[in-house]
Parts: sequence; structure tokens; C-alpha cells
Amino acid sequence: MRTFLERDIISGIQAQYEGQKGEGLIKGIGDDCAVFRKEGNDLFLITIDTLVEGVHFDLSWHPPHLLGRKAASVNISDISAMAGTPRFALLSLALPDPSAANWLDDFLSGFRSVLEEFGVILIGGDTVKSGRGAMFSICMTGEVGENRILFRSGARPNDIIWVAGRLGEAGAGLALCQNGRAGERNDWQGLVRAHLDPKAQVRLGTLLGKSGLASAMIDLSDGLATDLAHLCKESGIAGEIDADRIPMSAELIAAARELQVSPLDWAIRGGEDYLLLFTAASEHGEALQLVAKEAKAEIFPVGRIFVGKGVFLLTGKNREEISYQGFDHFRG
Amino acid sequence: MRTFLERDIISGIQAQYEGQKGEGLIKGIGDDCAVFRKEGNDLFLITIDTLVEGVHFDLSWHPPHLLGRKAASVNISDISAMAGTPRFALLSLALPDPSAANWLDDFLSGFRSVLEEFGVILIGGDTVKSGRGAMFSICMTGEVGENRILFRSGARPNDIIWVAGRLGEAGAGLALCQNGRAGERNDWQGLVRAHLDPKAQVRLGTLLGKSGLASAMIDLSDGLATDLAHLCKESGIAGEIDADRIPMSAELIAAARELQVSPLDWAIRGGEDYLLLFTAASEHGEALQLVAKEAKAEIFPVGRIFVGKGVFLLTGKNREEISYQGFDHFRG
Repeated sequence: MRTFLERDIISGIQAQYEGQKGEGLIKGIGDDCAVFRKEGNDLFLITIDTLVEGVHFDLSWHPPHLLGRKAASVNISDISAMAGTPRFALLSLALPDPSAANWLDDFLSGFRSVLEEFGVILIGGDTVKSGRGAMFSICMTGEVGENRILFRSGARPNDIIWVAGRLGEAGAGLALCQNGRAGERNDWQGLVRAHLDPKAQVRLGTLLGKSGLASAMIDLSDGLATDLAHLCKESGIAGEIDADRIPMSAELIAAARELQVSPLDWAIRGGEDYLLLFTAASEHGEALQLVAKEAKAEIFPVGRIFVGKGVFLLTGKNREEISYQGFDHFRG
Repeated sequence: MRTFLERDIISGIQAQYEGQKGEGLIKGIGDDCAVFRKEGNDLFLITIDTLVEGVHFDLSWHPPHLLGRKAASVNISDISAMAGTPRFALLSLALPDPSAANWLDDFLSGFRSVLEEFGVILIGGDTVKSGRGAMFSICMTGEVGENRILFRSGARPNDIIWVAGRLGEAGAGLALCQNGRAGERNDWQGLVRAHLDPKAQVRLGTLLGKSGLASAMIDLSDGLATDLAHLCKESGIAGEIDADRIPMSAELIAAARELQVSPLDWAIRGGEDYLLLFTAASEHGEALQLVAKEAKAEIFPVGRIFVGKGVFLLTGKNREEISYQGFDHFRG
């Protein structure tokens, strides 16, 4: 049987277009956004993401207003992962039938609320019928100065790996929803909210770009194990995560105990946290904490970059490869 | 019951974002592409389109290579409808399951063949699982000079309405495929090809923009009745089509006779011809024919713009309103 992993498809397409050079093209396939020159030192960012009912969202627990917010946030997160400022959005709606109109207004108001928060304007789109279930494709554009942009490819040996928040919250929230236990406890609402309504870290992203302190960046959409593997692959280096250093909330640990799963699994393999993951030379730790403070974000050093290939998890004396163990759409 | 027509949804969204002004934004929702300033007099075009299995295409008769070509062409057509040159593409793939890999390579090679023809580069995208059936969202960017762009909104009373080819071919081809008769006659292959593999009229579009002769332009994606209605609405005027002047091929007329349908219905209400529809002052007829000759295209005057509202069809002494009678995804 032919392997059909998401990253295999993307690698195949990437290889087909590798040689092609467009005028002004800075970065094609292989980062959070494509990048091309706008004018002078200003670069233009563009990204597309699709959310499918039954795959990315479940309407039985996802209020349409929050779904609209999430659809905007996950795309804005791709812009922030390159230290960019989001500018314009295009929204393509595929709707199953007229019944979808019941929640379309709520979806659109949620979508709009996030756009307004970040000064983004909806400038186009299309509306089609879907065979079954709703689907949204969103194209988001942004801008960033050439001396501020952060690619996935800039990590260097001995850099420290940082994450901008506590990991696994969205995965825990999803599990609680899937188990019908989302409403059970007040102190689980932060986890549920992390799944339903993630926040793009635009302020932190742009400040990191401006600071010149970070060497590479990506957003955590498919889980640390997979997103760090993307960053390492593009940078041509390896990464090592120290399990003891992974930031996890008390609520996450309590929920994991309740559902009898490993909290570390959510933190490493759970997707959709939409927190920034970045690397920086080890001497920048203090300066980075000042940047995080300015952005009102928490950042945590979780590991180290070294010469090699792959992503590894250190647990006590155990060293395990975890490359690409996050979410993949086509894993069995 | 709430009405839920495609254009109602779009109008509703358009109204929500009407007041918003982004820096450099020239045109938001309401044309073939959104437009914003790139640099100096250079404008940037962007459009998104989604194709859904079972709605836009049927894999039982659509070879994946041609489907890939069509996915690229229909988006490039939106760029050409504003007299632009296509530059970069993003492709979002939603695939049902591993079996889709069987035809994915063919789809991608077809997609690429059209991109290469027009010098377009694929710079990004994403790959997700779909619940049922394949779906593609394509975002296409382009460029055009500020003094060359053609909006939908430029038509003026007494302008002549032109179409750039014989109408209804794609609708006829679709009907032949749906009736399982596509392979029946050699002289139907042009019709079938028009449905399976439409061509974007980029050369004609850019030459029309350069000539300064046309006042407004749109591409025929949902049928003359609907696309002319869009153009008239954006221009704040009305349009009148002379049924006798609508260009139809002998093959189309023969196929209509065979399937016992009206050829005029395909020409007016059949979608997906992806030919350019434009308006121009009446004195430009000869000059326009020279432009068409240079672009190796055929153009035909089919009607006239006048003060008022709506789109009308003149058949002998009969005058019938046909506004928006083309394809709509949510008409019952």
C-alpha cells in the first residue's frame, strides 16, 4: 500500500516546484506562509488553511461563533509565526444546504470579531455548496519587514528551543469534548476554551521579529513533536526536548488523571495549541523574557538544537525519537 | 423559510465589511478579485475558488489530469477578468482517504501544466482529510497596472456588451457527460472539452486592459444571465441582450436538438464557459476586433447597456428579465 502521509504529499509537491523561481519570490512551499517582495524591504506573506466538519470541528459541541473565531485565529497564527502583521482575508465557504444558514450568521460574526481585533479586513471569497458537511478555506495575507521575518529554517546548533505557553491545553479540551465531559468542572473551562477558541500570538510574534533575538519560528498547529520536526528539517538540524521542562498546567494534569491518559502525550502529540515555538541563541534568555513580558506572554525553554536529524524526547535517562508523532491527517 | 441564495450570502457579508478601509485597499468584496496596492502604480490581485466533488466535478467522467487543469484555469480566469497577469498560486487539498492518492498525481500534473503555461508558481497550500469526497480551494494572485485594470463597475449607458467566444459550450458538454453521451460523436468533443478543460483568456484580458478600450469586465463562470447581472449591479446600470446575436456553434445547436433542450438556455444560463464578458463604448468596435485578432480570440457584440436595473433578453418583440438566472449553488 502506498504511504499517504500529509507530509509526503507536501514533500512531493514541494519537489515538483523546487526549481521554479518567480520574480520577487522569497519563500515558496515549506514554511508557515509563502513570502514574496512587496516593495523595498517590505515582504508580503500569504497562507491558506482549510477546516472540514467532522475532521477539524464538530458542530455538536463547537458553537458557531467560536468556530468562526477559530477559523480566523488559526490563519492569523500562520502570519504571526513569521513575525508578520495580518492584513487581509479571503473566505471560501462550502455549505451543505440551507439549514446551514441557521448558524452561518454566528460563524461570520465570530470570524469578524477576531479580524477586527487584529485590524484585518475580509476582501473576498466565494460560496459554494458542499456534498456533505461544512468546510471553510481561508486565505490570509500579512506583511513583515525583511529584517524582521522569522523563517523555520534559521535554527542553529546550541540554540535553545522555546515555547510560548503551556502545552497540550487544546488537545485536552478536545478530549473532554469528545468524552462529553467538557461541562463537568469549572477548572476545565480553560482547556475547553483552548480547543474552541485558540488565540493567535500576533503581538509576541511581531515583537520577537523586531527584537532580532530569535533564529527560527513556527506555530504549534500539529503538536510539538511534528512542528519541531518541521522546523528542524527546514533548518537542517536536530532538536532535543527535556520532558521535565515541558510547561503543563495543573488543570491539564488533573484532566489527564481523570481521563486516565498521559498529560505529556497531550503536550507533545496534541495539536492545535497555536502557540509560538521558536529558537534562539542561549545568551538571549533574559532579553527574551523581557520581550515576552512586553507581549504579556509566558515563554519556557524546553530543549536544545544540535547537529543531526530528528526530534528527541529526554525522559530521565531515556532518549526517544518523537519526530512527526503529532497530528497527521492521513495516519491510519 | 429564509432565502439562502449564493448572492444573498455574499451581499450580506459585503454589507458587514463595507465601511472598513484598509491601507492600500482598492477593491474588496464584489469583483472577480480583491485589489490592493503593491507598489507605485502596480496593483495586486487575489482570488479564491473552491471546487467540490459531486457539485463542481464528477470523477466518473472527469479525468484527474483535466480536473487539475480546470482547477488552475478557473482561478486564472478570475485574474484575467481584471486584465491581470497571474503570478502565484496556493492549493488547499481536502482528500477523503488514501485511495485518492491514485489520481492525486494526475490531478497535480494537470494543475501544474496550466500553471507552467502562464508562468504561475505554486507557493503554498495545505492538505487535510475530508469527510466525504475531494475538495480543492485555490488562491491565485496576480498583478496589473493601475491604468490597465478593468473592474465590473465601469460600464456606462450606451456601451456595447461583448462576449469573447461562443457561449454555452461548457453547459452542453456537462449535459452530454451527465447523459452518458459524451463519447457518442466526434463533433461533440469540443463541447465536452469546454466542460472538462476550459481555457482562461489571459492574453485577451491583458490586451484589453492595455488597449484602454473596455469599460468593465467579468468572466463567465455562472452563465451570461448571472454574470452580466453582477456587472450591471456593480456598475449601477442595466443590460439588454439580443438573442439573435448570441454566438452559438453548430455543434452546440446540433447537441441541443439531440438532447431536446434549448441551445439558448445553455448559452444564457449554462455556467463555466470562462470566456470574458466586457463592455465598451460603441465607437470602439473596430479597434476591439484588432485587439481580439492579436489575442487570437473571437469577440461578438451581444447587447447594450442602458440606464436602469436588471438584465433583459430580447427575442423578437419579446423582452424578458433574466437577471441571475444562471447557476446558483443554493437555488432549490
